[in-house]
Amino acid sequence: MTALAPVLARLDAGLDDSLRRLFDLLRIPSISTDPAYAGDVRRAAEWLAADLKSIGFDASVRDTTGHPMVVAHHDGPAGAPHVLFYGHYDVQPVDPLELWTDPPFEPAVKQDGARRIITGRGSSDDKGQLMLFVEACRAWKAEHGSLPCRVTILFEGEEESGSPSLKPFLEANAAELKADVALVCDTGMWDEETPAISTGLRGLVGEEITVRAASRDLHSGQYGGAAANPIRILARILSDMHAADRRVTIPGFYDGVDETPGRILKQWEGLGMTAEKFLGEIGLSVPSGEKGRSVLELVWARPTAEFNGIIGGYTGKGFKTVIAAEASAKVSFRLVHKQDPLKVRDAFRDFVRARIPADCSVEFHGHGGSPAIQLSYDSPALNRAKAALSDELPKQAVMIAMGGSIPVVGDFQTYLGLESLLVGFAQADDRIHSPNEKYDLNSFHKGQRSWARILDALARAR
Amino acid sequence: MTALAPVLARLDAGLDDSLRRLFDLLRIPSISTDPAYAGDVRRAAEWLAADLKSIGFDASVRDTTGHPMVVAHHDGPAGAPHVLFYGHYDVQPVDPLELWTDPPFEPAVKQDGARRIITGRGSSDDKGQLMLFVEACRAWKAEHGSLPCRVTILFEGEEESGSPSLKPFLEANAAELKADVALVCDTGMWDEETPAISTGLRGLVGEEITVRAASRDLHSGQYGGAAANPIRILARILSDMHAADRRVTIPGFYDGVDETPGRILKQWEGLGMTAEKFLGEIGLSVPSGEKGRSVLELVWARPTAEFNGIIGGYTGKGFKTVIAAEASAKVSFRLVHKQDPLKVRDAFRDFVRARIPADCSVEFHGHGGSPAIQLSYDSPALNRAKAALSDELPKQAVMIAMGGSIPVVGDFQTYLGLESLLVGFAQADDRIHSPNEKYDLNSFHKGQRSWARILDALARAR
Repeated sequence: MTALAPVLARLDAGLDDSLRRLFDLLRIPSISTDPAYAGDVRRAAEWLAADLKSIGFDASVRDTTGHPMVVAHHDGPAGAPHVLFYGHYDVQPVDPLELWTDPPFEPAVKQDGARRIITGRGSSDDKGQLMLFVEACRAWKAEHGSLPCRVTILFEGEEESGSPSLKPFLEANAAELKADVALVCDTGMWDEETPAISTGLRGLVGEEITVRAASRDLHSGQYGGAAANPIRILARILSDMHAADRRVTIPGFYDGVDETPGRILKQWEGLGMTAEKFLGEIGLSVPSGEKGRSVLELVWARPTAEFNGIIGGYTGKGFKTVIAAEASAKVSFRLVHKQDPLKVRDAFRDFVRARIPADCSVEFHGHGGSPAIQLSYDSPALNRAKAALSDELPKQAVMIAMGGSIPVVGDFQTYLGLESLLVGFAQADDRIHSPNEKYDLNSFHKGQRSWARILDALARAR
Repeated sequence: MTALAPVLARLDAGLDDSLRRLFDLLRIPSISTDPAYAGDVRRAAEWLAADLKSIGFDASVRDTTGHPMVVAHHDGPAGAPHVLFYGHYDVQPVDPLELWTDPPFEPAVKQDGARRIITGRGSSDDKGQLMLFVEACRAWKAEHGSLPCRVTILFEGEEESGSPSLKPFLEANAAELKADVALVCDTGMWDEETPAISTGLRGLVGEEITVRAASRDLHSGQYGGAAANPIRILARILSDMHAADRRVTIPGFYDGVDETPGRILKQWEGLGMTAEKFLGEIGLSVPSGEKGRSVLELVWARPTAEFNGIIGGYTGKGFKTVIAAEASAKVSFRLVHKQDPLKVRDAFRDFVRARIPADCSVEFHGHGGSPAIQLSYDSPALNRAKAALSDELPKQAVMIAMGGSIPVVGDFQTYLGLESLLVGFAQADDRIHSPNEKYDLNSFHKGQRSWARILDALARAR
């Protein structure tokens, strides 16, 4: 580890300088969803390109039909692995502004209980996290005049507004962005002492169904007992979707769902996350998913059918003895492993149609679908990153999963054929997307050192 | 029938005069729900009291905290039965006014296909119907100087705005209003040729339930599969309420429900109302109630559990991957025979509570309840009225029932201990409560003659 040690020392010594740079970036209100800030979004892109140039990257701001991308390249030693690092420099809006204790775009370091924190919008999501990697590269360059890996950087400016330009940009620039592995920094640690690598992201299928019965709303006295009630039909459909053991009953739904390897389940058990702890924060205590599985397995590695909204009939104050003409529900499925979104959608629609009485009808409205991402639990890159993280932080790195999705990971797989390594240093209480967003100073410091170590570890993989 | 024949002849000869009187009453816009018409409502009451006085009734306009009642008494022969005739002289609002072909308060007789109709608000509901009885009394008086029965009349001015004064008025004046049988004229014929007596009115229990799960709305990626979803719980509850044979599954729900006598079912069959005809008008064809029962039995003599409204989670445009903190539904039960509204409510609440997970909660909000009315199928009064109607109209009178309720019938039972005889001459297409309300001239003519016959028939019951 002769090459790494002075890099780490340099990062320690340069922490204040790196903070000043982060603050410069945090001061730019690059809110992507509000057109009023379009100029600031571009300014943040230009700031990043200039900073990357200053440490020897071939960096440029690249126009899209929306906000620009920043793309930067740096050579590595012959035969060294080529990494594609992804982050996003746009931020969420800040309202309600009155709930912020400190101004969102005037970053500061302050004491918060036992921790020191960096305050400000984007400090954790995602400017703080992406600057970790830039600082790690800067230290490598300063110390050795080179980077241990070949590095391509892609910084997006539309992540907080749905990434409309990402897919076309990846498709159009696939050759330029191709690498050996993608590094995605938009995730968190398990806790303050335990680094984490996310290896699973659930996919999603959204469906809206509207059940129609009579040609108009009916009086329940006049027709009740004879006329079909769409709320009753809808309730029956939704109810039928889960068996007594709480498995989803749609035929074929579990096709492509793998059992999580025992060693991974054991690792998750070791995290000590009980149902009481997980659900206690939201006022619950009883896991509602498939019986016999831990809450972490339920949210990380099991598919779901959820009902996100339902409406029908009279929903105002008081009472109206009406039988509605229609009722509708929004239903979503979280997918895991190799479940096919199209097959799940079709199977759901068949399931619903089979439960519609002959004189009623149903209309479906699809709301997009994306497959789950299941990264390998032990690729060489992952094992090296894991070792590097474990060297840096007090506790061993754990492989976790995420109940939601990070679309860019799927896009990298689709358009660039790249597996992603998801490493981040956010904490659960960073309040991303909310007032008083913060990033732990410890995350900012250890995160820089971690990326320096990961670059070194990946380089030694050749 | 020596006494009756000249009365009928007098009614035939006096039809034009009776129409003029009805028109006088119809011209008064006695809209009870709109305070702007309070003076008109009182004017209608005064018109009625004056008209009743003119034929020898001891009639008065009686103040309430709302609109006045009209009460009138007329002696009958010694030992003759005492009838309490009920009608209401207030009417529904007329908006949307632009949908009326003829002005709502300028009544006229006009040709409508093969029928002659009386146009105007209140022509059928209920001024036309109540004047039938007044005209029958007038003819008896004019012909014989007396009425065949002792008669008390109660005309209400708040029926279209919830009858707030009725119960207290009945309670305060029970001794004065007591009779042997009540005659309620707010119903219809089976068809243009077939008179009908309603012997059953379903009761009603309304309940609103709110299921609460997590302490806040959740992200379905982060918590889906682990956290309880109130829409799922609610859908299961509603779905569980009906078995595969479509009977209500709440324990004890059918307590007090009688089987309708075979001869009554046979009579209903004879009406030729098929499921296709009944449901076809509303775009349906398959009865959704208990298997093996006709649509008429389902809406007239079977209890129901209906879902009148449901709401939970995100119901706007697009999609939101949310797990709601709560979901709620409005549920109502139509009751028949001797079902006890309080017991049904309690049984429902127990049924729901048994299906709420340990870490979730449910809140109930009651929306009133009233028992069903089941009048005897063969009291002497009913049999005589039936015979009288069958003598007047081309077809035999049928005993029908109503899926909804007429609160005054229950109130007469509760406060005066009176059974009601429900006889009316409205047609299904009278457009009551809607623009272009009408009353068939045939109903107006045959109805007068029918009441003259019924008074005669009841008198001969002694």
